[in-house]
Amino acid sequence: MQHARHITLPKGFLAAGVACGIKPSGRKDLAVLAAQADCSLAFVTTSNQIVGAPIQYDRRTWPRGFGRARGFVINAGVSNVCTGPAGVRDAAEMARRTGRHLGTTGDKILVASTGVIGRRLPMDRVRQGIDAAAVALGTHHDADALEAIMTTDTRPKSAVVMTRLGGTSVTVAGIVKGAGMIAPSLATMIGAITTDASVSPPLLYRALKDSVYDTFNAVTVDSDQSTSDIVAVFASGLAGGKPLAGGSAAWSKFAGALHEVCAELARAVAADGEGATRLMEVAVTGARNPRDAKAAAKAVAESPLVKTAVHGGDPNWGRIAMALGKSSAKVMAETLTISIAGQKVFARGRGLAFDAKALSRRLRENTVTIHCNLGQGTAKFTALTCDLSKDYISINADYTT
Amino acid sequence: MQHARHITLPKGFLAAGVACGIKPSGRKDLAVLAAQADCSLAFVTTSNQIVGAPIQYDRRTWPRGFGRARGFVINAGVSNVCTGPAGVRDAAEMARRTGRHLGTTGDKILVASTGVIGRRLPMDRVRQGIDAAAVALGTHHDADALEAIMTTDTRPKSAVVMTRLGGTSVTVAGIVKGAGMIAPSLATMIGAITTDASVSPPLLYRALKDSVYDTFNAVTVDSDQSTSDIVAVFASGLAGGKPLAGGSAAWSKFAGALHEVCAELARAVAADGEGATRLMEVAVTGARNPRDAKAAAKAVAESPLVKTAVHGGDPNWGRIAMALGKSSAKVMAETLTISIAGQKVFARGRGLAFDAKALSRRLRENTVTIHCNLGQGTAKFTALTCDLSKDYISINADYTT
Repeated sequence: MQHARHITLPKGFLAAGVACGIKPSGRKDLAVLAAQADCSLAFVTTSNQIVGAPIQYDRRTWPRGFGRARGFVINAGVSNVCTGPAGVRDAAEMARRTGRHLGTTGDKILVASTGVIGRRLPMDRVRQGIDAAAVALGTHHDADALEAIMTTDTRPKSAVVMTRLGGTSVTVAGIVKGAGMIAPSLATMIGAITTDASVSPPLLYRALKDSVYDTFNAVTVDSDQSTSDIVAVFASGLAGGKPLAGGSAAWSKFAGALHEVCAELARAVAADGEGATRLMEVAVTGARNPRDAKAAAKAVAESPLVKTAVHGGDPNWGRIAMALGKSSAKVMAETLTISIAGQKVFARGRGLAFDAKALSRRLRENTVTIHCNLGQGTAKFTALTCDLSKDYISINADYTT
Repeated sequence: MQHARHITLPKGFLAAGVACGIKPSGRKDLAVLAAQADCSLAFVTTSNQIVGAPIQYDRRTWPRGFGRARGFVINAGVSNVCTGPAGVRDAAEMARRTGRHLGTTGDKILVASTGVIGRRLPMDRVRQGIDAAAVALGTHHDADALEAIMTTDTRPKSAVVMTRLGGTSVTVAGIVKGAGMIAPSLATMIGAITTDASVSPPLLYRALKDSVYDTFNAVTVDSDQSTSDIVAVFASGLAGGKPLAGGSAAWSKFAGALHEVCAELARAVAADGEGATRLMEVAVTGARNPRDAKAAAKAVAESPLVKTAVHGGDPNWGRIAMALGKSSAKVMAETLTISIAGQKVFARGRGLAFDAKALSRRLRENTVTIHCNLGQGTAKFTALTCDLSKDYISINADYTT
């Protein structure tokens, strides 16, 4: 699943990742993704009301979430959140300095930061990092760039999908960081996706919005939601071929490839939740409407009691019913069916007989699927999360001090 | 704080608690509270859409949440939830059998059950338990009754308040069980409150509703919400004096005493959250409206990242700002002030300088107060919760199997 190359596989992109001393560990902490020429950009950001300086900068520069851009500079270690006007100036300086190396201006460079909240960036180091990364830019440093954006991630997360649009071979590739605090919308997730398809900025934005709905926005690790999250896609158009027309067969195929990359990255984020030992998929069907489906799936996926039960290999469907019942979705015990790892455990208002030991064994597999049919309609949604373990507490009880 | 006698201190009540074999541990698991004559009853129940058979029975018997009653039978070990029509028959039988011992009918007996979801009650044992408790009823078995309703509670929780209404000495006393899964409204909490004040059922209900708003409903341990929760108050009127008139000075004094009992019990529940090492009070002020105040306070109190930071003695205000920002309350970094344990740490959009070591020490005290002034209005709300520790995971990872 991991690739030595990914975001520079689409034609027209270079990447680099360096260590410039923002992370106390001395690990890589600054990445630059550069397009060889201005290209289409689309991005979506956190829905938290408190947003970091980089997100403020990005939103001001591209108020509609799309436009033309040349590159993306990302640092880990300090998130540049709650740092006042000085923090926004720091973000703008990161963009300007990166832009200068790429022969353009700051308003063509997207910025993201992840890490501790409330500290100013050590700008001396950041400047050195940008300078070093600019020199290192190439097509074989994708892994360095990915490493540089990681915080509590335990493994690198990337995805590559190739497809043919008409007669043209097109690649979509992406990297992502994100582990804890990933909910309810895109939280502490930084994703960078590249493609050499030829797509206009507004169409690229539409495809991205459609893709994140049931991928990145379906991921929830602990119901907390970051102030810094962003998923951006850059399209160079260098694969050749005509610009994609909205609604065409080629467009659908491109949107499908982008969705596939987002889905693979989102699953990797959920499976790598802080302290996670397994991926939990909560599929809700039979909901009255899409809003209910999402609310019900998230209520189960975010329930600490359900997540600890899965961690313990305990097929405790009572907690699943409880979590559904407390959600804003319309739920009735009489119409509800619950299956755990393919085993139907609850129907028509009560528990069913099943082999608890066999099911407990299946709960210890890498992926656990919980399926809840609400029996109220036809809408559905699948939330992605992970189990809740003691390691989550260890990782988070002592992060800044 | 613990009392050998509590719920039988108000005149006119007897209690008992016995072990009848519902809990596998062999500990006490069935309690009966009996009034010497029919008295006023008021109760509030969970807002989860999936409710246990006892709650269904209680709501059918007293659809408005108040009326006349003679007693309360409670068991722990099995919650009689998701057990179909047979479960509701079991609850009715518990009421009938208890009523017969007290010389009345089932429709005068309130029922509650707590414990594992989805199992039928072992009715043979429950019948024996009711018979044994009826024989044991007295004024010196309060502690037995309290022990019998506990599940993962680590300590008994009771409160007694005495007051004078006009020339009459009146007592309000209560017991409560509840540890995990206590949110967003009254979850996995069973409370039994007695008083010898003379209060009509509708007035008693009004006083209870007013009291739970910022006490039991302010408690959140893990954002999960039980299917079985109930807080009930019985008023015998045997203290003497005229029935309380709504709006009178005596009425206000009685409502204050009831509120005090609820507040003491609620704080004890929060402090005894599963795996808790300290009580966390999240006071939100300056909210636009009461709904915002509550949403903001609960978002912070339910944030796993804030709770683990408090557990680790880590004054990580960034997580508090993040939790406020993701809530439905209107929050702006520029107008927000955050204090932790009395130390102002955030104002006007950024972090303030403070002695992190000294503050970390104060975070390790028994009670930690987080104060957030949203700067948007005058509404306020205080949520009660506890820190999140590894023991929460241990307790919950393997509860049924």
